[in-house]
Amino acid sequence: MAFFDYFKRAPKSASLAKDRLSIIVARERAGTRSGPDYLPALQQELLAVIARYETIDLANVTVNLDKSGGCEVLELNIVLPDSPPPPPPRLSQTVSV
Amino acid sequence: MAFFDYFKRAPKSASLAKDRLSIIVARERAGTRSGPDYLPALQQELLAVIARYETIDLANVTVNLDKSGGCEVLELNIVLPDSPPPPPPRLSQTVSV
Repeated sequence: MAFFDYFKRAPKSASLAKDRLSIIVARERAGTRSGPDYLPALQQELLAVIARYETIDLANVTVNLDKSGGCEVLELNIVLPDSPPPPPPRLSQTVSV
Repeated sequence: MAFFDYFKRAPKSASLAKDRLSIIVARERAGTRSGPDYLPALQQELLAVIARYETIDLANVTVNLDKSGGCEVLELNIVLPDSPPPPPPRLSQTVSV
């Protein structure tokens, strides 16, 4: 599969042996309509979602925003810390008053 | 760039000339730690974020979750409607009491 090839293309050395998370958002415009360019605003919201599951150090986050013709791509690459992530959020919470 | 090639690989016909949004989340494990598999849970949260910017018809959303070795990939493909998206959310809101 093309994506697996992409994520495996870099050779792994000891220094590169880190868990990583990559998020790619691609908006392909066919020219049938216009709309605001919201990909830049998305990056903060995506990081906020990921931060519910992983401990994110912003120093280990790289962001790339690119345009080519009718295609815009937002790419976030996050190197995850060695420590385990926090437990996932509960689906429901009970609040006592 | 590899991603642009990927998104442009399909030939466009009149029936395919739709705006599309693709979201790919790839988690690459280097084997240095373990953690819960949260990619399945992410898809709903990602759709909720996108729904703030685009009108999403779930019938036009395809989800693919794949694993290969130490790499897990969640892929969301959304065909966007022809109508323009709603205005982006305001960054701040004033509430009068």
